[in-house]
Amino acid sequence: MKALVKIMPKKGVLDPQGKAIEKSLNQLGFPQINKVIQGKLIEIEIDSKDEANAEKIIEDASKKLLANLVIEDYEITILKGE
Amino acid sequence: MKALVKIMPKKGVLDPQGKAIEKSLNQLGFPQINKVIQGKLIEIEIDSKDEANAEKIIEDASKKLLANLVIEDYEITILKGE
Repeated sequence: MKALVKIMPKKGVLDPQGKAIEKSLNQLGFPQINKVIQGKLIEIEIDSKDEANAEKIIEDASKKLLANLVIEDYEITILKGE
Repeated sequence: MKALVKIMPKKGVLDPQGKAIEKSLNQLGFPQINKVIQGKLIEIEIDSKDEANAEKIIEDASKKLLANLVIEDYEITILKGE
């Protein structure tokens, strides 16, 4: 089974990478681009036939390692049929 | 209008960050996790009323700055109603 974990900086937290991309895009000729936020996307392949169980394991992994809960939010999506 | 750009390493390209996460998760007590791929997720706010136009601009920005097309694939999603 495959799952995606989307990890984004929490609102209000400084996002220097996003800011750098935003500035570069404006300078490169994209003045229409107002705001950029950079996060991470982690694709996980997990040995589990049971969707609820897979989600529980990935939620646990997100809290323990993948996301820094002080400054980041995470969102898990189980990809069905994969 | 908001859009998401998903940027993942191409298949076959070395992904040391993904490998490091995979190994750490296995050692932390998640033996069910087989494969981890780490990519980027970039959220963009763009001044454009026209969806096709916004997509064109973001596609252009992805090619020029956001993705390294030699080793990465990108995928643009326009978020409707935002």
